[in-house]
Amino acid sequence: MGTDEAATRQKTAPRRRQLSVDDYVQGVLEGDRVILARTITLVESNSAAHLETAQEVLKQLLPHTGKSIRIGITGVPGVGKSTFIEAFGCHLIEQGHKVAVLAIDPTSSRTKGSILGDKTRMELLSREPNAFIRPSPTGGVLGGVSRKSKETTLVCEAAGFDVVLLETVGVGQSETMVRSMVDFFLLLMLAGAGDELQGIKKGIMELADAIVINKADGDNIAPAQQAKAEYNRAVHYLAPATQGWQTKAYTCSALNNDGVAKIWAVIEAFRQQTTASGVFENRRRAQMVDWVHSIIKEQLLTQFYSSLAVQQALPGIEADVANGVLPATSAVKALLNSFENDKEDK
Amino acid sequence: MGTDEAATRQKTAPRRRQLSVDDYVQGVLEGDRVILARTITLVESNSAAHLETAQEVLKQLLPHTGKSIRIGITGVPGVGKSTFIEAFGCHLIEQGHKVAVLAIDPTSSRTKGSILGDKTRMELLSREPNAFIRPSPTGGVLGGVSRKSKETTLVCEAAGFDVVLLETVGVGQSETMVRSMVDFFLLLMLAGAGDELQGIKKGIMELADAIVINKADGDNIAPAQQAKAEYNRAVHYLAPATQGWQTKAYTCSALNNDGVAKIWAVIEAFRQQTTASGVFENRRRAQMVDWVHSIIKEQLLTQFYSSLAVQQALPGIEADVANGVLPATSAVKALLNSFENDKEDK
Repeated sequence: MGTDEAATRQKTAPRRRQLSVDDYVQGVLEGDRVILARTITLVESNSAAHLETAQEVLKQLLPHTGKSIRIGITGVPGVGKSTFIEAFGCHLIEQGHKVAVLAIDPTSSRTKGSILGDKTRMELLSREPNAFIRPSPTGGVLGGVSRKSKETTLVCEAAGFDVVLLETVGVGQSETMVRSMVDFFLLLMLAGAGDELQGIKKGIMELADAIVINKADGDNIAPAQQAKAEYNRAVHYLAPATQGWQTKAYTCSALNNDGVAKIWAVIEAFRQQTTASGVFENRRRAQMVDWVHSIIKEQLLTQFYSSLAVQQALPGIEADVANGVLPATSAVKALLNSFENDKEDK
Repeated sequence: MGTDEAATRQKTAPRRRQLSVDDYVQGVLEGDRVILARTITLVESNSAAHLETAQEVLKQLLPHTGKSIRIGITGVPGVGKSTFIEAFGCHLIEQGHKVAVLAIDPTSSRTKGSILGDKTRMELLSREPNAFIRPSPTGGVLGGVSRKSKETTLVCEAAGFDVVLLETVGVGQSETMVRSMVDFFLLLMLAGAGDELQGIKKGIMELADAIVINKADGDNIAPAQQAKAEYNRAVHYLAPATQGWQTKAYTCSALNNDGVAKIWAVIEAFRQQTTASGVFENRRRAQMVDWVHSIIKEQLLTQFYSSLAVQQALPGIEADVANGVLPATSAVKALLNSFENDKEDK
């Protein structure tokens, strides 16, 4: 029975041809969508066997990357992100752009199923030959999702996409991560929902290059205008997200395709201004170097916290510290010793 | 000549008696100011020889710590921090409190001379027997200064100080660090100086449990009232610094001793409310555990970045990454290999 099943499977679903590094690179550069998708799967893979190939492919694609504008889009569920991205993406394609939409959902590994990047959410856009929509990679920690999305951005750029939209949910740390990956960061808001209701976390407004109040249609137009004025006052208290650029609030109705062109005009003005001042290129370079250091930090900490000896010692030591019977410095010394002994034993 | 000098020095400045762990502990618990100062010097020492004694002393003092309220005070130079702390500290002493003032200046190691904690700045307070003023520890990195100040806080608490004021300059990262060490965080501001002028960095307002507009005297009263109203509007856009506590703005003239008692009343209300809700104790416990993890992170990163092999490889690798010829993941792999080989060679 088992062998029969295996034989059937082999017949009906033949194993996909193994691609070489050259196959991947050529396919991506030619804009082959099937190979593009497979390259992203390779880059997203957690398997150690794929790592070397993925790194070689990325290395060869690198000279062909960097020519897009990378735009981060965030906002809590219900703000109309899918509708906005659909309207915005279709507008860009009409203007002759190639648009990649990458979803980043650091929570998807917990819920076992990403709510983002679901193609059925963006029906019109997903049918466009010049659009490419990719759901969130899974893979546990925020750092892992971040690494994969950053590399996927590079792959899409090499495949000729000149606008990359990185979509994330407005719930916590993921915004800071996306901010560190993009040129322009757009915060979607609703009028009259109250900051608490919108789940605006500490500092998220300070990351935004534009605040877009969506659903400014029907009875909601007046409240949206009022919210716009309020946010324009609020940004006065915040440091600029991008040096030399004044963040402003805008209204928009993605549903009626109203105000979407204006947002793109703002982003184009942003690109022109920051390119002229050198801020655009400097941020890109700094982002690359920062990224190296953040992966290093992540890996050093992962090595430490995944050590069995550390995991065994930690709960008791944390409790002693919280209860005030063990000084913090002694706790650190004990944990670092556990870690070193663990490594030497191996 | 050299030996003569040494002999003279020995005569005029005899070496201080070496203290045992018990001497330190007893002295601190009895509130002996000389021993208190020497214990802090021991805790602040960068010498490896002192580390073990310091840790043993801290361990024995721990059960006697935690009974103070820890208050962080920040504001840019010129805001009147010294005058405020002098007026505030004297008010507390009149109320029967014992007040320790610890300065935290992460820049002092660069400028080779702390601008904070200079006793001549607080002449009245420094003459009070129930006040203890300590300048900023030096010792390079922010993490080091932070560790020392945190331990000094514990030592002062064991010596019976029931209010610990941690003073820092309003320039960057030090506020976040001080916030992680205190129960209540107070931001001193000036009216009409403009946010830029006051050097308010990203997110500092979001750390504050109270915003105090100082120098509300003479012609400055009306602008101070206006600033108060403005800041009260601004905090509406910020997440609360402390769960369940509404941050508000207040005016004060430290020079005229006007409004100082009100600030203390606010802090007492804060303590009552957060103690009743459990937020006070939970934050303290979380701060202790977070502290352990932040020292671990600091030490792991220090080990890595102080490795000679890493230091040699880093500039070239960073340049290749910034220039887009080396993928970040490959850069990380090369650097981590350098680090491991370096450790094995030792």
